[in-house]
Amino acid sequence: MIHQLITDVDGVMTDGKFFYTESGKIMKQFGPHDNDGIKMLRVHGIKTHAITADERGFLITKKRLDDIGVPLTLVSENYRLNFIETNFGFQYTAFVGDGFYDFECLSKCQIGYAPKNATEHAKNHADHIIPCNGGEGVLLYVALDILQRENYETNT
Amino acid sequence: MIHQLITDVDGVMTDGKFFYTESGKIMKQFGPHDNDGIKMLRVHGIKTHAITADERGFLITKKRLDDIGVPLTLVSENYRLNFIETNFGFQYTAFVGDGFYDFECLSKCQIGYAPKNATEHAKNHADHIIPCNGGEGVLLYVALDILQRENYETNT
Amino acid sequence: MIHQLITDVDGVMTDGKFFYTESGKIMKQFGPHDNDGIKMLRVHGIKTHAITADERGFLITKKRLDDIGVPLTLVSENYRLNFIETNFGFQYTAFVGDGFYDFECLSKCQIGYAPKNATEHAKNHADHIIPCNGGEGVLLYVALDILQRENYETNT
Amino acid sequence: MIHQLITDVDGVMTDGKFFYTESGKIMKQFGPHDNDGIKMLRVHGIKTHAITADERGFLITKKRLDDIGVPLTLVSENYRLNFIETNFGFQYTAFVGDGFYDFECLSKCQIGYAPKNATEHAKNHADHIIPCNGGEGVLLYVALDILQRENYETNT
Repeated sequence: MIHQLITDVDGVMTDGKFFYTESGKIMKQFGPHDNDGIKMLRVHGIKTHAITADERGFLITKKRLDDIGVPLTLVSENYRLNFIETNFGFQYTAFVGDGFYDFECLSKCQIGYAPKNATEHAKNHADHIIPCNGGEGVLLYVALDILQRENYETNT
Repeated sequence: MIHQLITDVDGVMTDGKFFYTESGKIMKQFGPHDNDGIKMLRVHGIKTHAITADERGFLITKKRLDDIGVPLTLVSENYRLNFIETNFGFQYTAFVGDGFYDFECLSKCQIGYAPKNATEHAKNHADHIIPCNGGEGVLLYVALDILQRENYETNT
Repeated sequence: MIHQLITDVDGVMTDGKFFYTESGKIMKQFGPHDNDGIKMLRVHGIKTHAITADERGFLITKKRLDDIGVPLTLVSENYRLNFIETNFGFQYTAFVGDGFYDFECLSKCQIGYAPKNATEHAKNHADHIIPCNGGEGVLLYVALDILQRENYETNT
Repeated sequence: MIHQLITDVDGVMTDGKFFYTESGKIMKQFGPHDNDGIKMLRVHGIKTHAITADERGFLITKKRLDDIGVPLTLVSENYRLNFIETNFGFQYTAFVGDGFYDFECLSKCQIGYAPKNATEHAKNHADHIIPCNGGEGVLLYVALDILQRENYETNT
């Protein structure tokens, strides 16, 4: 049983890339279908919480997450595991991550998901590999998988 | 016989991705060849009408569709099926969509097309899968398929 | 023997995509390696001339082509074949194009090249398919192919 | 034994593409995971130095490299080999490059790495092909490979 989904942003809801001008990091590219997945989970009482280690791009990420009503916390990579344990616990928690240092969260949380193009290290520690790349709708497939495990209908 | 093509925009005429700065959603990336397909259909009297559920990006989408002379209506996902039935009817109507909730329109319209990288759910309900991704010329291949069925020449 | 290379821009030197804000078409994404190919040809006396049918994006395209010293002419798709015949002739001319309506130029010019992700119609009329997509260095591979046919050294 | 990593930027830390408006080259897209690799090497005393031949995009590149604390030098393609020999020597030096003219550096440096989507010429002269494209985390895989050869732990 899953109570909450904790998700990394860059590499999950984006393709991990970011745009620089001479002024610095100014833009990110978000993908389709994620919001459909988040809304499906919400209907069934499963909350989504996003975390990011990207301090320079934080306000960009925050704007997107605010637009779709998902809380976001800036958490450095070293503190990520502790943050989840303290605020949510590992049981009843699904985690989605793609980076090298996500492996502990992927292992410890009840279910760990990695996008198809995650680092090899993340994929080796995930319970399930999502069949699309970051930024191509990962959270829709995560939501469908969670709801299927819980035997919820998904209006299909 | 097809009288009109109704097409979703994001994920069909774009790759579904959109760009955020700290100010919000500011940019989309449109693809090649779609306008060639729309013009081919127009020559044969088949009109194209675009619909979108993306309220935040509406003015961006509107600017592009205005530039190529295609009418655009903002229609929420829940009202999409009703919008097509009321304004066009399902018969003589071809529909192109990629999202999870497009499945009903894809089923009910006379022909339903989904891009190669549409959600599995959309592809399962489409009559034809277009051999390219959203934003890579989907509407050209849709137009060629429609005209071939109608036995029109396409100047080749 | 090749005297000049005529190249389309969008879909050859870019991936064919273009960026819209609420203000309209504002940006294109050019790719690597093309300039290396153009410089190789220049060393051997083979000139490159670019053509585009994209009126709205013309000043963007012009800025890039100016930066690398390649002349650019705005030519509508219908007039493209005539433009090449009048200004260059088909003999001694290599052409690179990806769009549906490039098929005549690809057929008539001495050598016709199409990128790997060109429309099926363009690829069916090209003499050679370049083993990379538009925007990924097509003109480098075109240049290497032209120089190999002419038995020039390419500093390898 | 490797003392320093010299890396090209465009096509290694980016996908090689760059963005033009009517004002010229204004933006580049950097990728994920590279900074994780650079930090891993730094912990083990291996320095990273970036070189670029892109004069027009130099201030964009400089901003990104400053943000992650990696020195950057503008070096034209012809002077690249000489620059490495003079400042670092070829022994104890790993090099990453993707372009046609990187072949000499890839051959002469102790280890030469090329991304999966490098030019054929670069890949033919590299010691190792990295299993991802430029802009998708090349430097993480380079770092893991270097540290594995040196038998360092990578916290896994």
